[in-house]
Amino acid sequence: MISSLWSNPTHLPTALAESAGAVDQLIDKLLTVPDGPEARVYEAMRYSAQAPGKRLRPFLVLASASLFGVSLTSALQVAAAIELVHTYSLIHDDLPAMDNSDLRRGRPTCHKVYDDATAILAGDGLLTMAFEVLADADTHGDPAVRCELISYMAKSAGAAGMVGGQMIDLQAEHDPTLDIGAITRLQRLKTGALIAFSCEAGAILGKAAPEVRRLLHNYAHDIGLAFQIADDLLDAEGTEEQTGKSVARDAEAGKATFVSILGLEGARKQARALVDQALHHVETFGPAAELLRQVASFVVERKS
Amino acid sequence: MISSLWSNPTHLPTALAESAGAVDQLIDKLLTVPDGPEARVYEAMRYSAQAPGKRLRPFLVLASASLFGVSLTSALQVAAAIELVHTYSLIHDDLPAMDNSDLRRGRPTCHKVYDDATAILAGDGLLTMAFEVLADADTHGDPAVRCELISYMAKSAGAAGMVGGQMIDLQAEHDPTLDIGAITRLQRLKTGALIAFSCEAGAILGKAAPEVRRLLHNYAHDIGLAFQIADDLLDAEGTEEQTGKSVARDAEAGKATFVSILGLEGARKQARALVDQALHHVETFGPAAELLRQVASFVVERKS
Repeated sequence: MISSLWSNPTHLPTALAESAGAVDQLIDKLLTVPDGPEARVYEAMRYSAQAPGKRLRPFLVLASASLFGVSLTSALQVAAAIELVHTYSLIHDDLPAMDNSDLRRGRPTCHKVYDDATAILAGDGLLTMAFEVLADADTHGDPAVRCELISYMAKSAGAAGMVGGQMIDLQAEHDPTLDIGAITRLQRLKTGALIAFSCEAGAILGKAAPEVRRLLHNYAHDIGLAFQIADDLLDAEGTEEQTGKSVARDAEAGKATFVSILGLEGARKQARALVDQALHHVETFGPAAELLRQVASFVVERKS
Repeated sequence: MISSLWSNPTHLPTALAESAGAVDQLIDKLLTVPDGPEARVYEAMRYSAQAPGKRLRPFLVLASASLFGVSLTSALQVAAAIELVHTYSLIHDDLPAMDNSDLRRGRPTCHKVYDDATAILAGDGLLTMAFEVLADADTHGDPAVRCELISYMAKSAGAAGMVGGQMIDLQAEHDPTLDIGAITRLQRLKTGALIAFSCEAGAILGKAAPEVRRLLHNYAHDIGLAFQIADDLLDAEGTEEQTGKSVARDAEAGKATFVSILGLEGARKQARALVDQALHHVETFGPAAELLRQVASFVVERKS
């Protein structure tokens, strides 16, 4: 089913769609709704996890895993886990106490459809389930690989990574004085860390040498930042209809962003420079890294 | 330092104090506050994790681990992890969107001292860190043991355990029609699952036989329920000063509890019967289980 990704890795839209389909199918299975009154939290978890999305992080897991001959089963489990973590972070970030967003992935946010309490619990449940999926993952019988994945995912998602980045972001929200260094660090924590995990997961699964894993880390660092610059550009130039979420919120809040500091043209130039740099990092993988090359460009050219 | 627990396990107050001291010391190290604006979330995590508490769950880990000759280092890491998970659950449960509590462990709750957003993130950070601690734990070089701990902790804490229990509890809050079966199931998920993990963790670390682990599971089931009945009794009869948290909230809300269904005397009798049953389950361990026997009684006799 996701053969193009594994055996004929050339056409990005096909590969993205097939990867998303396979991950969604696994998530659907993981989120089977039980009988009993706890069903409500499962329904909220499903609602958010099954909302249409790019499934970029799972794709990065599969594409990087394909470089190292990792089995599809293993890669898919890690891909699903990272999407669960990403979904949890969206649900919590959207809460009234945080970014107070009504729209996400083209739908009302989780707390709008359910309520704040259910949304908090749904996020908690998704985060916890992600670790369960990794702990039970099929890693060719090697539990040390699972522990390494779990440790690295926790570091990337926790207070030293994504959670810390969101903490900085909340404080920076009304601070237009942030400089480019501070914004870069904020984004490296908030979105970069999980993207790095996604790109390196394949190397961990495939027990690649540290210097090879390092290349993917650097690639991830560059596309992660480019992704965020593109996000800032979409917030400044895109429509709600296009992006599926509220836009023009940064300027409204007087928030310092890559666009407010570099300007529209400067931000576009910087994003393209980062993509070029990312491509350079995966040169050594040759044709096998074709999808990683294409997705790097997709990250800045996307319209949602 | 925690020698009494390991070599002379007879005096519960000493063992509880020494176990709590050792766990608090490890948590203090884990929650070192970094430089940078993400410090705020670490401070909130510390504030809640270092609030005075019984540290019952970590104690159960250490006491059960002592039955199987598990090293203190291993047991302490698992003990710290479970206390991080417990603290996260308290922070999220206390939020205005959930139970809206102002007082916890004798102090203002996390969101009162910081704000709702920081409290949500602090909970997220603690939960994530708990998995990191387990993934990096010293398990005598056996990563399969770490994976088993992580998988079981995730199942106990997630939507099929604690998170699911809290979801049911929120819906049951204004429902005085719940029967004893429904309340028992609610509490088994909400508090019982993590107490079961705490009691079985030692058996997992010590690679005990399934039937031996089962005894601890049954012991945990009984003391977990007894613990909750004692909680209901404290809410009905205790003072805020004694318990360090808001009291008389169940009756105010017209909530069905063990006390509202069984009456004060009936609830007390039921709690004592559960403790007797729990003692029976650990008989076979002989004098080595002296602390587990004492803590079972402590659970229902405590005043906070």
